Amino acid sequence: MARIAFLGLGVMGAPMARHLAAAGHSLVVHNRSPEKARAWVQAHGGSHAATPAAAAGGADAVIACVGTDEDVDRVTQGPDGAFRNMSAGTLFIDHTTVSARIARKIAEAGRRQGIACVDAPVSGGQAGAENGTLAAMCGGTEEAIGAARPLMEAYSARIVHVGPDGAGQLTKMVNQIAIAGVLQGLSEAVHFTKAAGLDPDKVLEAVSGGAAQSWQMVNRWDTMMRGEFDFGFAIDWMRKDLGLALDEARRNGASLPMAALVDQFYAEVQAMGGARQDTSALVRRLNE
Amino acid sequence: MARIAFLGLGVMGAPMARHLAAAGHSLVVHNRSPEKARAWVQAHGGSHAATPAAAAGGADAVIACVGTDEDVDRVTQGPDGAFRNMSAGTLFIDHTTVSARIARKIAEAGRRQGIACVDAPVSGGQAGAENGTLAAMCGGTEEAIGAARPLMEAYSARIVHVGPDGAGQLTKMVNQIAIAGVLQGLSEAVHFTKAAGLDPDKVLEAVSGGAAQSWQMVNRWDTMMRGEFDFGFAIDWMRKDLGLALDEARRNGASLPMAALVDQFYAEVQAMGGARQDTSALVRRLNE
Amino acid sequence: MARIAFLGLGVMGAPMARHLAAAGHSLVVHNRSPEKARAWVQAHGGSHAATPAAAAGGADAVIACVGTDEDVDRVTQGPDGAFRNMSAGTLFIDHTTVSARIARKIAEAGRRQGIACVDAPVSGGQAGAENGTLAAMCGGTEEAIGAARPLMEAYSARIVHVGPDGAGQLTKMVNQIAIAGVLQGLSEAVHFTKAAGLDPDKVLEAVSGGAAQSWQMVNRWDTMMRGEFDFGFAIDWMRKDLGLALDEARRNGASLPMAALVDQFYAEVQAMGGARQDTSALVRRLNE
Amino acid sequence: MARIAFLGLGVMGAPMARHLAAAGHSLVVHNRSPEKARAWVQAHGGSHAATPAAAAGGADAVIACVGTDEDVDRVTQGPDGAFRNMSAGTLFIDHTTVSARIARKIAEAGRRQGIACVDAPVSGGQAGAENGTLAAMCGGTEEAIGAARPLMEAYSARIVHVGPDGAGQLTKMVNQIAIAGVLQGLSEAVHFTKAAGLDPDKVLEAVSGGAAQSWQMVNRWDTMMRGEFDFGFAIDWMRKDLGLALDEARRNGASLPMAALVDQFYAEVQAMGGARQDTSALVRRLNE
Ligand SMILES: NC(=O)C1=CN([C@@H]2O[C@H](COP(=O)(O)OP(=O)(O)OC[C@H]3O[C@@H](n4cnc5c(N)ncnc54)[C@H](OP(=O)(O)O)[C@@H]3O)[C@@H](O)[C@H]2O)C=CC1
Ligand SMILES: NC(=O)C1=CN([C@@H]2O[C@H](COP(=O)(O)OP(=O)(O)OC[C@H]3O[C@@H](n4cnc5c(N)ncnc54)[C@H](OP(=O)(O)O)[C@@H]3O)[C@@H](O)[C@H]2O)C=CC1
Ligand SMILES: NC(=O)C1=CN([C@@H]2O[C@H](COP(=O)(O)OP(=O)(O)OC[C@H]3O[C@@H](n4cnc5c(N)ncnc54)[C@H](OP(=O)(O)O)[C@@H]3O)[C@@H](O)[C@H]2O)C=CC1
Repeated sequence: MARIAFLGLGVMGAPMARHLAAAGHSLVVHNRSPEKARAWVQAHGGSHAATPAAAAGGADAVIACVGTDEDVDRVTQGPDGAFRNMSAGTLFIDHTTVSARIARKIAEAGRRQGIACVDAPVSGGQAGAENGTLAAMCGGTEEAIGAARPLMEAYSARIVHVGPDGAGQLTKMVNQIAIAGVLQGLSEAVHFTKAAGLDPDKVLEAVSGGAAQSWQMVNRWDTMMRGEFDFGFAIDWMRKDLGLALDEARRNGASLPMAALVDQFYAEVQAMGGARQDTSALVRRLNE
Repeated sequence: MARIAFLGLGVMGAPMARHLAAAGHSLVVHNRSPEKARAWVQAHGGSHAATPAAAAGGADAVIACVGTDEDVDRVTQGPDGAFRNMSAGTLFIDHTTVSARIARKIAEAGRRQGIACVDAPVSGGQAGAENGTLAAMCGGTEEAIGAARPLMEAYSARIVHVGPDGAGQLTKMVNQIAIAGVLQGLSEAVHFTKAAGLDPDKVLEAVSGGAAQSWQMVNRWDTMMRGEFDFGFAIDWMRKDLGLALDEARRNGASLPMAALVDQFYAEVQAMGGARQDTSALVRRLNE
Repeated sequence: MARIAFLGLGVMGAPMARHLAAAGHSLVVHNRSPEKARAWVQAHGGSHAATPAAAAGGADAVIACVGTDEDVDRVTQGPDGAFRNMSAGTLFIDHTTVSARIARKIAEAGRRQGIACVDAPVSGGQAGAENGTLAAMCGGTEEAIGAARPLMEAYSARIVHVGPDGAGQLTKMVNQIAIAGVLQGLSEAVHFTKAAGLDPDKVLEAVSGGAAQSWQMVNRWDTMMRGEFDFGFAIDWMRKDLGLALDEARRNGASLPMAALVDQFYAEVQAMGGARQDTSALVRRLNE
Repeated sequence: MARIAFLGLGVMGAPMARHLAAAGHSLVVHNRSPEKARAWVQAHGGSHAATPAAAAGGADAVIACVGTDEDVDRVTQGPDGAFRNMSAGTLFIDHTTVSARIARKIAEAGRRQGIACVDAPVSGGQAGAENGTLAAMCGGTEEAIGAARPLMEAYSARIVHVGPDGAGQLTKMVNQIAIAGVLQGLSEAVHFTKAAGLDPDKVLEAVSGGAAQSWQMVNRWDTMMRGEFDFGFAIDWMRKDLGLALDEARRNGASLPMAALVDQFYAEVQAMGGARQDTSALVRRLNE
C-alpha cells in the first residue's frame, strides 16, 4: 500500500481519494479551501496538509484533480508546489483536464527531478468518480503508466495508455469534440421533435436502436425533454475543454467548425444562466 | 399469407421483398427499370408487372420503397398508380423516406378509397434490409399499423407506432438530424486525432466507452480513419433527407443550425465526388 | 406612352405603379385583395380589374410584383392569369423575387405566345420603390430588356441586364447571400461592442471608413444599437429568398454554409416575434 | 519636432516610421532582425539601436508596431525593453494588434513610471501605411491621445479616441468580427455566381450599389473572381486577430458564432497553403 498525497477535493477528486483510502492506501489530502480537506479527513480518515508541498512530503505518489492549467501549475511548480518536496523515484498523476502543453511542461520538470509523470484526464463524470468506474486516458512513458495503473484502478473501469506525455490530454480533447457534435445534433433532434408535436417516448424508442444512437441520446433524451439540467458535467467546464481543443487545433492545423460553433452556442446558454448546468442544456437556446 | 405488390426493387426494396417471399407471401413486383423486376423474379419467384396499377390488382397489400416524393406520388396516384387498382379494405405501406406532407396526402387519398395507409420509413441501411433487422418508424391509425405489422415483421427487428399519418416521416427526420450532429462531431474528432498524431486505435479504446460514444463512433471510426467510404448510406440520400427536415422546420418553426450547416458541408463532399459514398465521408472535406 | 397592367399593389408594387402613372402611362391595376386596387385608383387614377386576365386585356405590357413562385404562377398562367389575355408582341416584366426555375418556365410559356419576358427582381427596398431609385437585375433577351427598360426607368436608378432568362433571379440570390454574411458579421460586431462596454458612436466612427465598411453598417448600426427594427425588409421575405438560394444551390452544387446558418438564425428571430421586422433584427438573438 | 524611437519595421512599421521622418521628427529605429533596421536607416536617415531600451534612451516618444502580445511585452517590459529607459513625461504608442489585457497591463506599468500610453491598432493595411492614410482606433486618457495625435497624423487619415486603455484594441476586434462576416458572405456570393454561370461583372454592377454593398465587395470581387490573393492582409494575422476577439468574448460573455466558424474556415485555407494570402482567400475553400 502506498503513501499518497491527493490535491483537489472537488466533485471529482473527493470520491477518487475516497476510493484510494478504501483500497487501503494512506492519504494526505490538500485543497485550496481547507474546509473541504478537513471534512474529507473527518469522513474518510488520513490527514490533511496546508500546502501541496506539505502534502507531498514523504509521499510515494502525488495525485491531482484541480481545475485549470494555472491550478495544476501552482500545485506542482508554484512556491508551495508539490514538486518542491518530491524525491526521485516518486510518481505524479494529473487527472485535471488541461492543455497538452502544460502536461508536457510538467513531465519535463518531473524528468529533471526523477519524478515519473502521467497526464490522465478522465471521463465518466461525477457518477463515474463516485462509483469508481472512470475511464482514464493516459499520456506518459510505459513505466510511469505501469506505476500509476494500480493506483488508478481504485476508481477506474478503463485505463488506456494512448501515447507519450500530453497524449492523455489530447485524447480528452477528441472526446469533447465528439460530444459537442453529438449534443448539438441531439438538441436539434429534441427541439424538432417538440416543434413537430411528436411523442418523445415513441420517437426515442424508434430511433435509439440504430445509426442515430449515442450515449447522450440514451442518457439525456428524457431530461432534455423535461428541461432538467441541474446535474452532470457543467457547461463552464465544457467551454474550458473546448477552448483547450480549439487552442491545440490552432497549433496542429485542424479545422473544427462545429466545435467552434457549439462553443459559441454555449456562451448563449451561459448568458441564459446555464453556466453550472449539464452540457445537455445546449438545447435551451433552441427551446426557450 | 397475403398477396403483396412490392414497388421499387432497389438497394432496400429488393431484400425487403425477398424476406416477404421467404415468409411465404405471394408477390407481384414492379420496378421503374423492368430488368430489376425480372431479375428479382428469377431469383425469388413470384411475378412482375409493368405498372404499379397492374401489380396492385388483386393485392391485399401494396408496399413501396422508391426514392422521392415524386416517385411515391407517381406509384400511388399517377396515371398508372397503384391506387387506381386497389379496393376498399386493402393496405398501403410506404417505406420510402419522403415528406410528411406527401404521407398525409396519400393517407387522405387512401381514406377516400378505404385503403389503410402507413408511412413507415426505415433505418438500418442496406445491411438491415439484407438481414431483416430494420427499424420501422410508423405513422397512421392503430388499425393500419396493426394490419401492417405482421408484414413488416418479415424484415424489421423493431416497429414503433409513433403517431398519426406523417409521424413516421417526421421521426425519420429526427433520426437524420441527430446523425448529422454525430457525424460532424466524429469527423472533427477523427481529423483532430490525425492532426495531433495520436494512435487511432488507442483513442477509440479510450473514448468509445463513455459520454462520447455513438453508433457511428463504434461502427465508422476505423473506416473513417482508413478513408473507406464506398458502402453504406449515400450522401445523396442524406442530403434529400436533410432537405426534407429543413423544409419541415420551415413550417414548424424549428431552428436547425447544425443540420443546415452539415447539409452544406455535404455539398462540398459531393463536389469532391462523394455523392454515392457513405455519410461518414463527411470527414473528407477536413482530411483531404 | 404605354398601356400597362400592374399586378400586385403591395409595399413595393404600389409605389412602382404610381411612378408609372406619374410618367404618363395608362394603368389598369389588379390586386388579390381588391380594396388595395380600389384605393390605388382613387389616389392615382387609371382603373382596376378583378382578375389578372381582365387587367391584361389590351395592355402593351404586364408588370407583376406579387409574393412567391405560386403567386407568379397564378397571375400569369392560372385560370384567370394574364397570359390568357396577352397577344403576341406584348411584354411581361416580373419584379417578384422568385426561383430561376419559375422565371424560365414563364419565359418559355411567353415564347410560345410571342410574349417577351423579363425577370427583374429589385433591390432598394420600400424606400427605393417610393423614391423611384430601385436597382433592377434583369434576365431575358436583349430585345425583351430593351423593351422593358423605358418602363422600368420610371422607378429604377439602375437597370442591369445580367444574362438570359432567370439570370435576374439568380443575381438577386447572390445579393441576398452577400447580405446574410454582412448582417451576421454586423450583428456580432454590435453585440461585442455592447458586451465590451464600448461607445457605439465612437466605434462606428473608427471602423466605418475602412475594410469593415458596408451599406448595412452605415445604414443599420445605429438602429441595431437602439434595438429598432420595425421598418425595412422583413425577415419573412429574407427567409423566402435564402430558401430560394439554398434550393438553387442544391441544383448547381454550391455550398453556402453561412447562408444556411443565418437562415436558421432567422428562424430563431421569427420565434422571438421578429417575422415582420427588418433583417437587421438578426442581432436580437444575441442581444436579448 | 520630437525624438522618436520606433520599434518594429515590418510591412506596417517601416512606412509609418518613414512618414514620421519625412515630417521632420528625429528617429532611432529598432527591429528584431537588425538588417531591416540598417536598411531603413540607409534609406531614410536617423539611427538604429540594438535593443528597444537603447532606442528609447532620450526619446520623447516610443512607438511600436511589432506582432503579438509576447512581442509587445518583450519590447516594453522585457529585460531590454523600452520601459527600462523611458523617463516620466514620455509617451508610448502601440500600433500592434494585440489583446486588451496586454494594452491595460502596459498602461498600468506606464502609469507607475509616468509614461502616457496609447493603444492604437490601425486599419487600412499596407496601402494605408504606405500612403499615410491609416485609421487609428485609440484607447487611453484624453491627455495621452492628445499627445499622440500630432505624431500619428503623420500616417493616419483618421484618429478616433474610443475610450480608456484597451478600447482601441477592443474596437479593432469589432472591426475584424464585421469583416469576417462580410468576407464569408462575399465568398459564398462569388462561389454561387460561378456555380450559377453568371457574368461576374454584370452581377457586380447589379448588386454593388445597394444593401449588399461592402468595402470588400467593391475592392475584392474582381480579384476573388480571378483567384488572386497574393497581396493584402494575411490570413495568419486575421486568425491572430479573430483569436483575440474570441478570447475577449470568453471574458465578456459575447457569442460570436460566425466569427468562430470563419476562424475555422481560415484553418482550412491555411492547410491549402493560404497562410500568407489576403483574407479574401476565404473563397478558396469553396472554389477549389
Ligand atoms: N465534474 C466532472 O464531471 C468532470 C470534471 N473533469 C475535470 O476534472 C477537473 C476537476 O473537476 P471538478 O472536480 O468537477 O471541479 P471542482 O471545482 O469541483 O474541484 C476542483 C477542486 O480543486 C481545488 N483546487 C483548485 N485549484 C487548487 C489549487 N491551486 N490548490 C489546491 N486545490 C485547488 C478546488 O478547491 P476549492 O474548493 O478552493 O475550489 C476544488 O476543490 C477539471 O479539470 C474538470 O474539467 C473531468 C471529467 C468530468
Ligand atoms: N439505402 C439505404 O441505406 C437507405 C435508404 N432509405 C430510403 O429508402 C428509399 C430507397 O432507397 P434505396 O433502395 O437505397 O434506393 P435505390 O435507388 O436503390 O432504389 C429505389 C428503387 O425504386 C425504383 N423507383 C423509383 N421511382 C420509381 C417509380 N416511379 N416507379 C417504379 N419504381 C421506381 C427505382 O427504380 P430504378 O431501378 O429505375 O432506379 C429503384 O429500383 C429512399 O427514400 C431512401 O432514402 C432509407 C434507409 C436506408
Ligand atoms: N499587415 C497589415 O496589413 C496590417 C497589420 N496590422 C497589425 O500590425 C502588426 C504588424 O504587422 P506587419 O507589419 O504586417 O507585420 P510584420 O511581420 O511585417 O512586421 C512586424 C515587425 O516587428 C518586428 N518585431 C517583432 N517582434 C519584435 C521584437 N520582440 N523586437 C523587435 N522587433 C520585433 C519584426 O521583426 P522581424 O524582422 O525579426 O520579423 C517585424 O519587422 C501586427 O500586429 C498586425 O496584426 C494591422 C493592420 C494591417
